[in-house]
Amino acid sequence: MVDLSVKGSRIRLMIQPGDIVLLYHSDRMKYLLAIPDKGKFSTHRGEIEYEQVIGKDYGDSIRTQLNCEFHLLKPTLADLEMKVRRTTTIVYPKDVGMMLLQTLVFPGARVIETGSGSGALTIVLANFVRPDGKVYSYERRPEFSANARANAVRYGLDQFCEFFVSDPEHEGFKQEDIDAVFLDVPEPWTLIGRAHEALKGGRALVALIPTAEQLRKTVSALELQGFTRIRTKEMLERDILVRPSGTRPADRMVAHTVYVVFAHKVRIMTDCE
Amino acid sequence: MVDLSVKGSRIRLMIQPGDIVLLYHSDRMKYLLAIPDKGKFSTHRGEIEYEQVIGKDYGDSIRTQLNCEFHLLKPTLADLEMKVRRTTTIVYPKDVGMMLLQTLVFPGARVIETGSGSGALTIVLANFVRPDGKVYSYERRPEFSANARANAVRYGLDQFCEFFVSDPEHEGFKQEDIDAVFLDVPEPWTLIGRAHEALKGGRALVALIPTAEQLRKTVSALELQGFTRIRTKEMLERDILVRPSGTRPADRMVAHTVYVVFAHKVRIMTDCE
Amino acid sequence: MVDLSVKGSRIRLMIQPGDIVLLYHSDRMKYLLAIPDKGKFSTHRGEIEYEQVIGKDYGDSIRTQLNCEFHLLKPTLADLEMKVRRTTTIVYPKDVGMMLLQTLVFPGARVIETGSGSGALTIVLANFVRPDGKVYSYERRPEFSANARANAVRYGLDQFCEFFVSDPEHEGFKQEDIDAVFLDVPEPWTLIGRAHEALKGGRALVALIPTAEQLRKTVSALELQGFTRIRTKEMLERDILVRPSGTRPADRMVAHTVYVVFAHKVRIMTDCE
Amino acid sequence: MVDLSVKGSRIRLMIQPGDIVLLYHSDRMKYLLAIPDKGKFSTHRGEIEYEQVIGKDYGDSIRTQLNCEFHLLKPTLADLEMKVRRTTTIVYPKDVGMMLLQTLVFPGARVIETGSGSGALTIVLANFVRPDGKVYSYERRPEFSANARANAVRYGLDQFCEFFVSDPEHEGFKQEDIDAVFLDVPEPWTLIGRAHEALKGGRALVALIPTAEQLRKTVSALELQGFTRIRTKEMLERDILVRPSGTRPADRMVAHTVYVVFAHKVRIMTDCE
Repeated sequence: MVDLSVKGSRIRLMIQPGDIVLLYHSDRMKYLLAIPDKGKFSTHRGEIEYEQVIGKDYGDSIRTQLNCEFHLLKPTLADLEMKVRRTTTIVYPKDVGMMLLQTLVFPGARVIETGSGSGALTIVLANFVRPDGKVYSYERRPEFSANARANAVRYGLDQFCEFFVSDPEHEGFKQEDIDAVFLDVPEPWTLIGRAHEALKGGRALVALIPTAEQLRKTVSALELQGFTRIRTKEMLERDILVRPSGTRPADRMVAHTVYVVFAHKVRIMTDCE
Repeated sequence: MVDLSVKGSRIRLMIQPGDIVLLYHSDRMKYLLAIPDKGKFSTHRGEIEYEQVIGKDYGDSIRTQLNCEFHLLKPTLADLEMKVRRTTTIVYPKDVGMMLLQTLVFPGARVIETGSGSGALTIVLANFVRPDGKVYSYERRPEFSANARANAVRYGLDQFCEFFVSDPEHEGFKQEDIDAVFLDVPEPWTLIGRAHEALKGGRALVALIPTAEQLRKTVSALELQGFTRIRTKEMLERDILVRPSGTRPADRMVAHTVYVVFAHKVRIMTDCE
Repeated sequence: MVDLSVKGSRIRLMIQPGDIVLLYHSDRMKYLLAIPDKGKFSTHRGEIEYEQVIGKDYGDSIRTQLNCEFHLLKPTLADLEMKVRRTTTIVYPKDVGMMLLQTLVFPGARVIETGSGSGALTIVLANFVRPDGKVYSYERRPEFSANARANAVRYGLDQFCEFFVSDPEHEGFKQEDIDAVFLDVPEPWTLIGRAHEALKGGRALVALIPTAEQLRKTVSALELQGFTRIRTKEMLERDILVRPSGTRPADRMVAHTVYVVFAHKVRIMTDCE
Repeated sequence: MVDLSVKGSRIRLMIQPGDIVLLYHSDRMKYLLAIPDKGKFSTHRGEIEYEQVIGKDYGDSIRTQLNCEFHLLKPTLADLEMKVRRTTTIVYPKDVGMMLLQTLVFPGARVIETGSGSGALTIVLANFVRPDGKVYSYERRPEFSANARANAVRYGLDQFCEFFVSDPEHEGFKQEDIDAVFLDVPEPWTLIGRAHEALKGGRALVALIPTAEQLRKTVSALELQGFTRIRTKEMLERDILVRPSGTRPADRMVAHTVYVVFAHKVRIMTDCE
């Protein structure tokens, strides 16, 4: 996925094997693919030979033998995130977007996340810390860690990640002077002290929390263990349909994913100081 | 703001003149400052000498002569964005977060935005395309452009931006092979063709649109001028209060800022092909 | 459904044939029934003989031969509304509740609605205007009118309704001095003048409107044809789950049904006055 | 407020002293008044003599000596509710509307509410149970009860209410065979048993609850004390502005008032049965 376009060049960059393409017919018929050397892709509206795709450019279109047109689009970060191979529930783009704004992630940043889950958040963070930063991704379950890594490899982002199979509650994080910590585990309150050790002063911790009871426990742990500016937010995303028949919101929407807690590390004062 | 921390170093980086600090007492009393060499900062709870701040680390705290404690926090991207000096309304973090996920911005990307406004979106984009990418920011009103640039300078992000005082409807954009275009102008439908010229194939255009009428006009222009996968979203952000008295949403919230339209450029077929 | 309980009586009123019962096992297995004299009701968890139900009281429970327990609950107004036999989309309880508060419906009121649709709104209005008021329900399509009437009959509320098969745009409403008018038709702007004729001075008109384009046309017609205090609202309803595993909103929700417009009739001044 | 209009009469009913009028200029300048015999009402846009109002009809308009026009509108139920003289926070129309639909209130119903608060909910319930039903309104604080009663008197609805100054937790409710119970107290879980005693079988209890912690306690008490079909909802109301400049939601909205819990009484089985 690493983009090599040269400023001002008129060279048309062709899609190569391994490139990630969003094969788009409509919102109900779209496929995210890492293009193989050869073979074909089947839809219920006909087949596409991968050789047809190779050498085309993003923005071009191709047709199945049943004359159904697909556009070759550059996937968005949300596409990449939502289309990881899933072994777990994943963080939704609406929440990830807020997390990027309410922390300070940047190219070169070193961030920690746990658990790795399916690697959905990992690849978003990796996209933004590259090329000199790193995502340290912790996961207790080896098979989940392996899947998360495989997703990062598929998108060409694995070089900006390190995956650890360990339990940070007992073993701690191996890094320090970290720019942001993202906790997406069932009991985030058990990791607050570990996150405090790892973070640079004044930086943000983020916790993703499904229920009100977990929220209270997490906030209490943050208050007791050296964090300030503790804030909780929830995001609602609504699709709007602009159709010949009129403009109106879609019929249904996601009502809840997680509450997101933000807090900044402060130096803990001791009596001796 | 450019962070120079060395991996694994135990060196405690001190706050220097020019660094951006969030002086935080509470959500109602917090100040974003570029720390000057000397002088003092007045709050209604006492004064702080800047010399007290210099040499401290993020995460430390200081007290006014009235014994009111302030934490020295690293501002988030949302803090930076919301605290630009404003000459216009600005894009909200909730919307910017979604925009980052529903496009593909990355370190090294070259993106266009118009208008520059107060530079709020500019600095978010600059943060993520650095160090090798660029934000090309167009604005018709010279004084707005100057203010946007001043905000980027204040945050140390101006080297990743180029500001243009021009009217893209008539003069077009000076760049091509662009990774994403962000339109935040009253009549985005007048710029769809110009955005199409500038964009790489398959990449995303984003338009921020306050009203349903503008939305329909913009979507119609996109449909006619070489875009597909046209989608519109709105975001609602709600603060949740976790207090000793109980956990509940805040009393009030922002109900509307903008609708955000996304669309991908496709190659326009002509009869001759 | 007309309730005859006598104040202070200790007589336990038994469920009789014709009574409306909500047979409730869980939110996923519940049935609204008008209890017949005899026969049985089949669920995928076993059968219930209607004779088992007759003579029980609301709040009692019965079991299928497969030992699945059902409670005999008094249906709510929302249950009645949502369980009409549908030939059309129906107004949602969230919107009806707002409509009752943002108008002045009361026992004895005389109100008009058009179209009758499936009679969902009809039965809610009939419940509140009885016993001396009346719902005048207009519908152009005879089969819809007949179904709406059948739903009112089933709930014992038909005596408080009059159904008209006619086109109010051309024929007008047959009543005047009406307390509230409810418009649920595709082109409400065509009926504004007719509604003005029928309404008492200062009283409210309500229009249910799916799209922004219809909304604008309706509001323009109201402004031109003798209405003031024109307001538009939308309602979002979210279910909250309180479970042993924690308290949190449900995963999904309805994102849009209609915009609801309210306006009050004012006397139209003419030059001659 | 009791309406005496005769069906089909062409008699124009005049506004009399004591009638409730919404004096409406705009959403920012509107006043709910019980019209006195004489005197005058001052606005910052001039004065209105009450004698000007008497003898006019709803829907007419009058002007101040500064030529500012006010319409004489019939207030909605939400107007009446929101304009009670307040000694407490009051239930919002958005929540009351849902409560009416998710229970079964009707003309002739006998319902209990506690606390009386400012009487806002009382007057809505009284409006719908009249003329033969009754609202039994309990309140521990005598001055609140007196204010709630005064609000009911002002609107001519007191004959449909009985006010009790007592603590239902210790003294219970004096009524039984009640159609619906509304709990708006800080500790609703203390009244679940009392509500169960008072309710008819299969009927609904409603509790208004600000925080997640209170919600969990209340739901637990309901589960243990003979209630089923326990459901919790929250309502969000958004104003939509339809202006010459475009159609869009208002900038801000209420984000939270209360969670509303609904539950149906079931007969509690005892070992002896």
